[in-house]
Amino acid sequence: MIFFKTKSIIIAVLFSFGIASVMMSCMKHDNDKNTKPNIIVIFTDDLGYGDLGVYGNPTIKTPNLDKMASEGQKWTNFYVASSVCSPSRAALLTGRLPIRTGVTNVLFPDSEIGLPQTEFTLAKVLKKNGYNTAAIGKWHLGHKSPFLPTDHGFDSYYGIPYSNDMDRVEEFEDNDWIVSQIKWAEQENYEAYNVPLMRNDQIIERPADQRTITKRYTEEVVANIKSLKEEPFFIYLAHSMPHIPLFRSEKFKNASVAGIYGDVIEEIDWSVGEILITLKEEGLDENTMVVFTSDNGPWHIFQTHGGSAGLLQGAKGGTFEGGFRVPAIFRWPGKIKPGVVTNMGTTMDLMPTICELTDAKLPESRVYDGYDISPALLGTGKSPRDVVFYYRGKQLYAVRKGDYKAHFITQLCWGNSRTSLLVTDPEIEITNKPTILETPLLYNVNVDPAERFNIAEEHPEIVAEIKTLMEKHQSEINFSR
Amino acid sequence: MIFFKTKSIIIAVLFSFGIASVMMSCMKHDNDKNTKPNIIVIFTDDLGYGDLGVYGNPTIKTPNLDKMASEGQKWTNFYVASSVCSPSRAALLTGRLPIRTGVTNVLFPDSEIGLPQTEFTLAKVLKKNGYNTAAIGKWHLGHKSPFLPTDHGFDSYYGIPYSNDMDRVEEFEDNDWIVSQIKWAEQENYEAYNVPLMRNDQIIERPADQRTITKRYTEEVVANIKSLKEEPFFIYLAHSMPHIPLFRSEKFKNASVAGIYGDVIEEIDWSVGEILITLKEEGLDENTMVVFTSDNGPWHIFQTHGGSAGLLQGAKGGTFEGGFRVPAIFRWPGKIKPGVVTNMGTTMDLMPTICELTDAKLPESRVYDGYDISPALLGTGKSPRDVVFYYRGKQLYAVRKGDYKAHFITQLCWGNSRTSLLVTDPEIEITNKPTILETPLLYNVNVDPAERFNIAEEHPEIVAEIKTLMEKHQSEINFSR
Repeated sequence: MIFFKTKSIIIAVLFSFGIASVMMSCMKHDNDKNTKPNIIVIFTDDLGYGDLGVYGNPTIKTPNLDKMASEGQKWTNFYVASSVCSPSRAALLTGRLPIRTGVTNVLFPDSEIGLPQTEFTLAKVLKKNGYNTAAIGKWHLGHKSPFLPTDHGFDSYYGIPYSNDMDRVEEFEDNDWIVSQIKWAEQENYEAYNVPLMRNDQIIERPADQRTITKRYTEEVVANIKSLKEEPFFIYLAHSMPHIPLFRSEKFKNASVAGIYGDVIEEIDWSVGEILITLKEEGLDENTMVVFTSDNGPWHIFQTHGGSAGLLQGAKGGTFEGGFRVPAIFRWPGKIKPGVVTNMGTTMDLMPTICELTDAKLPESRVYDGYDISPALLGTGKSPRDVVFYYRGKQLYAVRKGDYKAHFITQLCWGNSRTSLLVTDPEIEITNKPTILETPLLYNVNVDPAERFNIAEEHPEIVAEIKTLMEKHQSEINFSR
Repeated sequence: MIFFKTKSIIIAVLFSFGIASVMMSCMKHDNDKNTKPNIIVIFTDDLGYGDLGVYGNPTIKTPNLDKMASEGQKWTNFYVASSVCSPSRAALLTGRLPIRTGVTNVLFPDSEIGLPQTEFTLAKVLKKNGYNTAAIGKWHLGHKSPFLPTDHGFDSYYGIPYSNDMDRVEEFEDNDWIVSQIKWAEQENYEAYNVPLMRNDQIIERPADQRTITKRYTEEVVANIKSLKEEPFFIYLAHSMPHIPLFRSEKFKNASVAGIYGDVIEEIDWSVGEILITLKEEGLDENTMVVFTSDNGPWHIFQTHGGSAGLLQGAKGGTFEGGFRVPAIFRWPGKIKPGVVTNMGTTMDLMPTICELTDAKLPESRVYDGYDISPALLGTGKSPRDVVFYYRGKQLYAVRKGDYKAHFITQLCWGNSRTSLLVTDPEIEITNKPTILETPLLYNVNVDPAERFNIAEEHPEIVAEIKTLMEKHQSEINFSR
C-alpha cells in the first residue's frame, strides 16, 4: 500500500502558483505536445493464462494480441485481486483490495448493493482531470443506482450489468450444477438467459442478444473513440466473454480449430484488432495506452467451454496461480518499451499508474493497494511491487513475496471438481472446505510456477517471514479505510 | 509415407538432357541467384513444449527464440517420432520411423550397435548434393564406427556421443533412481559423469567439461559457419542440454529467475542469438534456413531440474501430447512466411522438406514417413501431414488423425511418478505397465490439447476410423523397408 500524502502536499503547493499541471506535464512528457494520453482498458471475463497464442495456446489463434504484445509489453507475473468477478472488477477500478471496498463476493440479480459511492473509481478521477469516460460491457458492481457506471464517473455506459449466465428463464433440472450449466450452454440459446442490455441507466434490450455482444461492444468502442477524441478519453471495455454461456457472431462460428471456446477468443482478438486499427486511422495510436487483461483465471470445470491456465495450477475461484495470474499486455507506441516483463504487477496497480501517466491526482485520505508500475512500463526502472495477497472472499489464503508464495489455507476451486485443480503432488490433499494448514505450503513460483514442489520444510525461515508479513497486513486491514 | 518413384523417373529423364538441376532451381528459387540455401538444425535435449517464452513460459526468458519465432514461423502441432532420445534422433536424420531404422530404444555406453549404414541420413544426402556438413553436440546413434557422425555423411563431428548422464563414476547409493539422479545432479559435478568429448572419431577430453559444453558447441558452430561458407553447408547442432545433469557456463549462473533449469535454457537462447548474429555478419542471413526444435518432451520427473510441457499432459517417455509435441521454429528471411502454423508437422518431415528446398535427391527404394512441408513454410499451401503415430519402442500406443487422437495402449511416463502425468480425468487409471484398452481413449487435441475429455463414447465412428488406419499402417510396416 502507498500513502500519497507527501506528494499531494507538493502538488497542492504548486497549484497555488497555478502551474502545477503544466510543469508536471513538461517534466514527464516532453515529446507528446503536452496532451494527456488516452487510456483504453480491455478486461475479459474468465480468460485464462494459457488462452492466447502469445501465452502459449497451441490452437487458439490471436494474431492481433500477439502483435500487440510484440509491439508493447507482455507481463508474465500479473495478478488480479480476486479470482472471481465482482471483487476483481472493484479492485481494478479503485486500486484497492476487495476487503477495503466491501465488494468481496459475486453480485447477483437480486443483490441490492454494489460498489459504494464512498469509493473513487479510475473513471471518476480521470473525469475530474478532463477526460471523457465511457464504460462498455459487463459491469457487475451493482445494477441499480447509485451503483451503475454512470454513478461512478463514467459519462456513458453500454452493456450488461452482471454475468451473462444469470437470470435463467428456467431452473436447472439436473442437481449437478456443472452438468446443467454445460447442457444449457451447449444449446447456444441466448433467450434462456434473461440478461438485460443497458444504455446508461436504461434497459434497452432484454434478453440481450449475446450472439452479437462482442461485435456490438467493439462497434461501440470504435464509435466512442471517434466521437470522444477531441478530449483525452478513458474507455473501459469489459467483455462479457469468454464467461459461460459462450456466444460469438456468425463470422466466427467454427472459425477456430479449438472449438467454440476458440471461436470466442478469436472474436475478442478480432475486437482488439479493430480498436488498434481505429486508433491508427484516427491518428491516436501514439497517444493512447491500451491495456489488455482478464478478471480471473479460466472456469476450468466447464470443460471445453472453459479456458486454460497454461502450465499454471488451479483456476477461477481458487488461490493457486491459475486463478489469480492473468495475461496482461500493455501497448503505447514510443512510450512503453517493448519486451517481456517478469516483474510483478496487479490490476490494482492500474489506478496509481494511470494517474501518474496522465498527471491525474490520486484521491487522498485512503489506502491504496496498487503501486505505480510506470517505471517498468516506460523502461526507466522496475515495478515496485514485491507482494501479492490471494484473498478468497474476506479470507486471506496465500501470500507471495518475491519468488516465494505461501499457502496458509487451501480449498478446491469452484465446482469441487478434480479437473479444477491439477494436484500433482500426491502428498497434498485439498478438499472443498477451507483447510487452515498447520504447516503452510511454500513454493518458489518463479522456479516452479506450477506449484508442484512444496519446499516449506527446507525453508521455514521464508514461511515465517511471509507469515509475519501476512499478520502485519491483517492487523493494518482492520484499521484501514 | 511417400513413394518418390514418379518424381525420380522425371528427374532421371531430365538429367539425360543435363538440365535437370538448373531447371528445377530456376523453377523453384527464382530470386536466390541459384545458390542452394544453407541449413542449420538446432535440436535440444528434453526441452519441453512449455519451456520457451514464445511458447508461454512465464519466467524463462528467451528473447532470441521469441524474435526468431516472430521473424519466422512458430509451429504449434509439431511432433517427434519417439519421446526418447536415440529413436527421435534417428527419425529426424532419416525421415523414417524408428521401427524402420531399427533404432527403437535408447543406446547406452555398452551398446555395440547404432544407426545402420543401410540408412541414408540427411547429411549423406546433402553431402552428395555438394554441401559441407558438420555435426556438433550429442549424437546418441552409436558411439563406435561405423555408427559415428563421420560414418553417416558428416564431414566433421564435435560433441558427446551419448547422453550426458551416462558413464557415472559411481553407482547410486539410493535405490530410488529418480531421487539419486537428482541428488547427483544437484552436486553440479561434471567429473561424476565420465562422458567423452569427441572430435571426429577421437576422444579429445574425458570427462567432458559439461560446464562449458553449450558455450563450446556454440563457438564451434560459429567457427563452422565462417569456415564452410564458400559452399552451401548443413550444420546439425544437437545440444546436450537441458538433459539432466544440468550445467551452464559462469555467465549464466543465476542469470534466470527460473533457477538452474532457466539458466540452462537462457544459455541455449543466447546460443541461438550468437548463431543468428553470425549469419547476419557473414551475409548469409537470407540464404540460410534455421530450424529449432527438441528431441522429446520434458523429463518432468526431475522436478525443478526438468522442464515443462506447458498445458500439455504427459512428458518424456510417454505417448500423451507432452511427450511428443515440441516447440518448432523455422526462420529463413524472405522465404519463410512469418506466422503461427497450426498445421501438423514432425521432425521426420525435415528430410523430404530440406531435400525439396535444396533440390537434393531423396534416395529411392525406401519408404519415408516424412512429408514435404515446404508449402506451409513458404506460404504457398498447407502441410500435407494429417497423421501422427505415437510409438513407444516397437509398440504403437496412439494415433492422431486430423483433430482426433486415439490411445490404444496407455502407460505412465518414465519414472512411474504421478508428477509425470497430470491425470485430470478421474475415470482414467494409468499404470506403469502397458495396458491395452478395450475401448480406446479419444481426444480432440485441437479443442482439448491437454487430453482431459475422453470422447470415445460419443464418437465410436472416429475411433473405428483411426483403428482401421492404425491396422493398415501396422500391416504395411511388416513389409516395409
